[in-house]
Amino acid sequence: MLAVTILGNNSAIPAFDRHPTAQVITLDDHLFLVDCGEGTQTQMNKYKIRRSRINHIFISHLHGDHYFGLIGLITSMGLLGRHQDLNLYGPASLKDIFDLQLQVADTQLPYNLIFHRLEEETVLVKDNRFQVEAFRVSHRIECWGFIFRQIRPPRKVNPEKARLAGVPSSFFDRLKWGENYETQGGLLIQNAGITDPAPRPKSYAYSADTVFDPQLAVKVQGVDLLYHETTYLKDLEERATKRFHCTTVQAATIAQMAGVRRLLIGHFSSKYDRLDDFETEARAVFPETNLALEGVTYLVT
Amino acid sequence: MLAVTILGNNSAIPAFDRHPTAQVITLDDHLFLVDCGEGTQTQMNKYKIRRSRINHIFISHLHGDHYFGLIGLITSMGLLGRHQDLNLYGPASLKDIFDLQLQVADTQLPYNLIFHRLEEETVLVKDNRFQVEAFRVSHRIECWGFIFRQIRPPRKVNPEKARLAGVPSSFFDRLKWGENYETQGGLLIQNAGITDPAPRPKSYAYSADTVFDPQLAVKVQGVDLLYHETTYLKDLEERATKRFHCTTVQAATIAQMAGVRRLLIGHFSSKYDRLDDFETEARAVFPETNLALEGVTYLVT
Repeated sequence: MLAVTILGNNSAIPAFDRHPTAQVITLDDHLFLVDCGEGTQTQMNKYKIRRSRINHIFISHLHGDHYFGLIGLITSMGLLGRHQDLNLYGPASLKDIFDLQLQVADTQLPYNLIFHRLEEETVLVKDNRFQVEAFRVSHRIECWGFIFRQIRPPRKVNPEKARLAGVPSSFFDRLKWGENYETQGGLLIQNAGITDPAPRPKSYAYSADTVFDPQLAVKVQGVDLLYHETTYLKDLEERATKRFHCTTVQAATIAQMAGVRRLLIGHFSSKYDRLDDFETEARAVFPETNLALEGVTYLVT
Repeated sequence: MLAVTILGNNSAIPAFDRHPTAQVITLDDHLFLVDCGEGTQTQMNKYKIRRSRINHIFISHLHGDHYFGLIGLITSMGLLGRHQDLNLYGPASLKDIFDLQLQVADTQLPYNLIFHRLEEETVLVKDNRFQVEAFRVSHRIECWGFIFRQIRPPRKVNPEKARLAGVPSSFFDRLKWGENYETQGGLLIQNAGITDPAPRPKSYAYSADTVFDPQLAVKVQGVDLLYHETTYLKDLEERATKRFHCTTVQAATIAQMAGVRRLLIGHFSSKYDRLDDFETEARAVFPETNLALEGVTYLVT
């Protein structure tokens, strides 16, 4: 299962009860946090995100609407008694900032905060079920996007067949990952007979903040779901370009060029109180578009 | 008029829809911000605080629940086109932190952010109507409290008498500050005849985070309203002391020792979902106690 939960869909300034950028990616039983604008820990409370399941946080760039909530989250995790390691990926200076903030507060985190400096387009996290990749994005300052890919999704257990074959339900989780079952009598139950094949592996790309950049379409080619920023409506293309941001039409064009299945748009400017036009304009170019709405989970299909 | 509006009354971790510390002090037509926990700018939106009227921000100490919202607020002020100077008072390292954060974001604020390092117990701001003083507080790290004092409150204009005497309403604001009025015919209208005397000047002290400290009672002696932290209920005195915080009974004892008129308590630990016992316990020692509740404005009388 791959899904994206939006905690913040706004740019720069919090407005109209929209919050700065933060997303939680669910990949089977792992949660990943991508960006962490001010108030993210409060949004996590509101939407009941279990922070103890987050072991990896990815920060795209050091504009405040993407990371001002990080220091609050990592210190709160400490106050709440976290002990397991936390991996943090971001531009080099991010470490200088939180090191200074922890030092002046005389705070010792009770867990290991392991910082991974982003420096090249590479795989950041990998196990046999999924991987997370970083790619460079064209913004006013150093900026990174991330792709979450399932490598080998779980097979679907047919519980009736499995039980008839004598497989205990405690073994079902191992069936998902393709194991055969041997009964106490030494009989080998073939996995394929009691599970359905795994679905196609899914992928999700997060574009971060970006100017219109056809190279981005190459980097996210063929993902199932692309999140692309649309800070402005199409009439403000000049302003978007000047500020290294994109419009609805530009985001939808990238989605089209990249051949993705679906597009999710967000990072809306605080100048807009209503979002309807974002959806209309983007869908005119790329019909499979959704608005990124806070509190909503988008399943990657 | 002197009043305190609570934007955040919780300690450390946001919980139960309570937010980390932030207060707005209204002193006639000035607004002052004291501390600025994460989410303060959102609380300002919610409670319609006009940030353009804030020209002075005071940060008591560098634990995150007192300043993690500051960088978001000062960058948002810039994005919203602020031009007038902003004065910021805090421990020295605060400047290092926001300098670094502005630098990595390649952000130039469109206004002057004037940093005043807190280094001694002194008057920070003074005009002929009010002053703001800083005093040292005993906490785990360098920490400061602040006293807001009216020096000379405005007189109350009697509009009927003033009009009968031929004073135009455009002059009423000057009457408040004691001026006499000279009519076009050269007649001098004595201020005292058309205004009521100014009330007693009011004062408000903000204690910040503190261990139980009788010295504090000396420093805030006789203020009209004292805000004192009560992180814990009375049964957790040992824990409070170990963490350089106070209980209800300790706060109320300080209020009693200092001979203040009223006590406002806050900085409640996230372990408490209900606040009733804080009020009950503090009032048992010092009856004129109120809970600091978010969104509520406490007039200093």
